[in-house]
Amino acid sequence: MANKTPPDSTRRSERSRRAIYDAALALVGEVGYNKLTIEGIAARAGVGKQTIYRWWPSKAAVLLDAFTQDVEGYEAGMPDTGDLAADLKFVLRASVDEFADEKWQAPYRALAVAGANDAELSARFVERLLEPGIQVYVKRMRAAQERGEIGADVDVRVATEMVLGPFTQRWLMRTGELTYAYVDTLVDLALAGLRPRA
Amino acid sequence: MANKTPPDSTRRSERSRRAIYDAALALVGEVGYNKLTIEGIAARAGVGKQTIYRWWPSKAAVLLDAFTQDVEGYEAGMPDTGDLAADLKFVLRASVDEFADEKWQAPYRALAVAGANDAELSARFVERLLEPGIQVYVKRMRAAQERGEIGADVDVRVATEMVLGPFTQRWLMRTGELTYAYVDTLVDLALAGLRPRA
Repeated sequence: MANKTPPDSTRRSERSRRAIYDAALALVGEVGYNKLTIEGIAARAGVGKQTIYRWWPSKAAVLLDAFTQDVEGYEAGMPDTGDLAADLKFVLRASVDEFADEKWQAPYRALAVAGANDAELSARFVERLLEPGIQVYVKRMRAAQERGEIGADVDVRVATEMVLGPFTQRWLMRTGELTYAYVDTLVDLALAGLRPRA
Repeated sequence: MANKTPPDSTRRSERSRRAIYDAALALVGEVGYNKLTIEGIAARAGVGKQTIYRWWPSKAAVLLDAFTQDVEGYEAGMPDTGDLAADLKFVLRASVDEFADEKWQAPYRALAVAGANDAELSARFVERLLEPGIQVYVKRMRAAQERGEIGADVDVRVATEMVLGPFTQRWLMRTGELTYAYVDTLVDLALAGLRPRA
């Protein structure tokens, strides 16, 4: 079994990978997507740029991996207590905290801006990051629908967007504050019309 | 009374102003906000750059005026037939057509991206363009609320965002198609929970 123990080089690789992700996220938040370079990421991470090129073909690929390293965490972050409103409020309040954290928000904004600007990058961003995030909500709504909390005829994808769209608009376009009170009102108002008709 | 007739120079000014707006909107859609210059706008409009500087202090100011020249048109575009769902669908279907028109969509996207990137610009963008657009919906919702179509306790601002947020997210982040069927479903689902409780 000894040969199944990760050799030192694997642990070093893992350390480098983490350092590259951290550097990419920090840098894109500081300089924006257009000015982000593989060289800059390498310098910040303390690795040679060949190390990055060995694993990723482009800065977009590095960034998408950096953002999605915790995508399984998304799914684990959505509780199912049987109370849909409470569960959505719980997750959205956590998102309010996350978006108030500049270290998290700045790189995410930089990537969103780059995606809004560039349809090709956007398609990868949607596929790898946004759509999996949306699907976590859709699945939770579908579970509620199967238990009869939500009407059988409700389009749960559109219902999900009624919660996530306003949050995204306030954040990206700065049309309003993101507070616990706001997400609570949003969830209550969005869910009010989804109950099965008597 | 003769001296109240606009002299030729006023008509020329008005022509120049329109040409500058058209040039600014076309150019920002082509090159993006960062690469837009007063010189570029002047050249495209066929005016001297001093003409632009005489009226506007910056490219942001030109663009915001260009975008808001028809803001009164927004308000006129929202009908009140007494049927809130029908009226919202009417306006949102018109928006679907508008956002499918590259000539309109591209400059608007460029400005949205610039605003997402830059908090100072964003504040002006929100105040001059986005908030007046949102308020047209809020007012229409409030009229429905006063007539008892919408519950007295409903936050009509948040209700408006449940319709506009998902549209904006699909457009900017490209998370889904903007179709008549989509906006119809969205309006029906958003309004379903707003009726006064029996």
